[in-house]
Amino acid sequence: MTEAVGSLTVGVDIGGTKVEATLVDPDGRVIASCRRDSGAHLEVAAIVSELARCVDELREQAGGREIGAAGMGVAGQIDPDSGVVLDSPNLRWHKVPIRELVQEALGMPVTVTNDVRAVTWGEWKCGAGKGVSDLLCVFVGTGIGGGVITGGLLLTGSTGVAGEVGHTVIDPNGPLCRCGSQGCLEAHAGGWAIGLRAQQAVEAEPEAGSVLMALAQGDSSAVTAAMVSQAAHADDPLALRLVAETGEALGVGVASLVNLFNPRLVILGGGVIEGLPELIGTVVEGVQARALPSHRAEVDVVGAKLGRYSGTVGAALMAREGLTG
Amino acid sequence: MTEAVGSLTVGVDIGGTKVEATLVDPDGRVIASCRRDSGAHLEVAAIVSELARCVDELREQAGGREIGAAGMGVAGQIDPDSGVVLDSPNLRWHKVPIRELVQEALGMPVTVTNDVRAVTWGEWKCGAGKGVSDLLCVFVGTGIGGGVITGGLLLTGSTGVAGEVGHTVIDPNGPLCRCGSQGCLEAHAGGWAIGLRAQQAVEAEPEAGSVLMALAQGDSSAVTAAMVSQAAHADDPLALRLVAETGEALGVGVASLVNLFNPRLVILGGGVIEGLPELIGTVVEGVQARALPSHRAEVDVVGAKLGRYSGTVGAALMAREGLTG
Repeated sequence: MTEAVGSLTVGVDIGGTKVEATLVDPDGRVIASCRRDSGAHLEVAAIVSELARCVDELREQAGGREIGAAGMGVAGQIDPDSGVVLDSPNLRWHKVPIRELVQEALGMPVTVTNDVRAVTWGEWKCGAGKGVSDLLCVFVGTGIGGGVITGGLLLTGSTGVAGEVGHTVIDPNGPLCRCGSQGCLEAHAGGWAIGLRAQQAVEAEPEAGSVLMALAQGDSSAVTAAMVSQAAHADDPLALRLVAETGEALGVGVASLVNLFNPRLVILGGGVIEGLPELIGTVVEGVQARALPSHRAEVDVVGAKLGRYSGTVGAALMAREGLTG
Repeated sequence: MTEAVGSLTVGVDIGGTKVEATLVDPDGRVIASCRRDSGAHLEVAAIVSELARCVDELREQAGGREIGAAGMGVAGQIDPDSGVVLDSPNLRWHKVPIRELVQEALGMPVTVTNDVRAVTWGEWKCGAGKGVSDLLCVFVGTGIGGGVITGGLLLTGSTGVAGEVGHTVIDPNGPLCRCGSQGCLEAHAGGWAIGLRAQQAVEAEPEAGSVLMALAQGDSSAVTAAMVSQAAHADDPLALRLVAETGEALGVGVASLVNLFNPRLVILGGGVIEGLPELIGTVVEGVQARALPSHRAEVDVVGAKLGRYSGTVGAALMAREGLTG
């Protein structure tokens, strides 16, 4: 914790479709939050302005307390030293010097990290993983990201981009992934992939797809993962099949991660898991069926606890500690 | 380094088919070595006696210098605190208190670790990974094991069994694995799996399999991975196809590991790689084709340097440092 960091910090989450800023006190409590849809194709400059407006709103709610720093989570690979987003397939960013841009716009020190690494930090410091020194977070939103705490340390890797759990190949002949590879976990179970698979299923089987088609108001290309959740909870057989496939893929992926990292705890979160919490049970089954006996005996799989604030609280706490990993 | 550790240490490797003990000086130099085939089904007591005879031989070659400790690498999952082998599918051991048994037989302090973790330690301290603080070792022998150094620390996991790179699923509908799961990297590219795949191919395509069949003296069930190497180097098309499939599987698996761990270096070793060093090039291609741009740009893939002594030198050096991870 550095002296320069004031009593409050802001955590920022720039995801595939939203900008969110949360004002957090030193204990990780949320003072106020501001969320705006950014759409999938917003330009960097527009996102930064949107964010600056959010932080202005938060300043008004800070009750005169100083906001000393901001921490940002970005969906993608970040260079921790320069704060440059190296690659963000979901934001379609490549080599964007986001820390510099945001520092200038907000007039305060900014740290940048991968969004799910920020989530991991938040869940570890004050969520489902509090007190656990070996855990991994798998967050299933538009994409799939992850963070790893091992021996009480955040795994960063040689250039700060470790933990890309969504881009482990679970089937080399599987669907194309946004990253350019094929058969990644994300290409099976990320929100965009569930939506795409649903669209293809609706087109291939119009009768079975009638419920999803109705939810999408007759436009098969508008079917989303959220609609699949909704239809599954109304017992639509096609949606249930898509959910089962998603759970199977997640189980396979998480079992491999359990064998690799030997965590005490796996925390599952993100929009897809929030919409389909029953996936947690399917992942438990997958881990028990596929992980090594010595590994599966010791691991719990649970849902994230901080909900919609986990990423921003984590980013705010990381900024406070001056961490940029 | 503890005072109790004398000037020489012994490193022991108990693999699927052999017992090996190497006498090592404080700088990791090999003074003498002793290797005996144990066969695949040797009982624990017989392996321990074999080992004790090996160490007696080494004592004679120590030139009067004290042997202060032994470090063992065992193919399987080890509990680092108790020195119990929790599970070793290749040795068919389950909950074997090997440290206790070997300590009694040798009359010196013994540390036990996973065999590939010992190899990783050796390659890191005085092999291909010297001076690199983020690396991973993938060793392809009878099975496939791995070890991870991240931020200058050996990854151990919550119960000391992290790093099971051979048991990451690369195809959920792939071949059955010895671990009980399906489609693990080891079930595609481990020595036993290459042999099995070759046997099946020879039976399914007797004409194409004639070269392998001749090497196996007419017994298709006797075809091994070593024979596949030999036939491939004589340009046998079936063997070349089996090698290509093996390389493809390793490339997929290593690309996922690169995305997860963001290493600076991947070290490939083990009997299969020693027999087919051209696989290293195939893995490089797989990583370049499949890993994320920000990850593949920073990683080198090289062969192990310590060769047949890497495991025992690593285990001896770990024993010296009093490490049991």
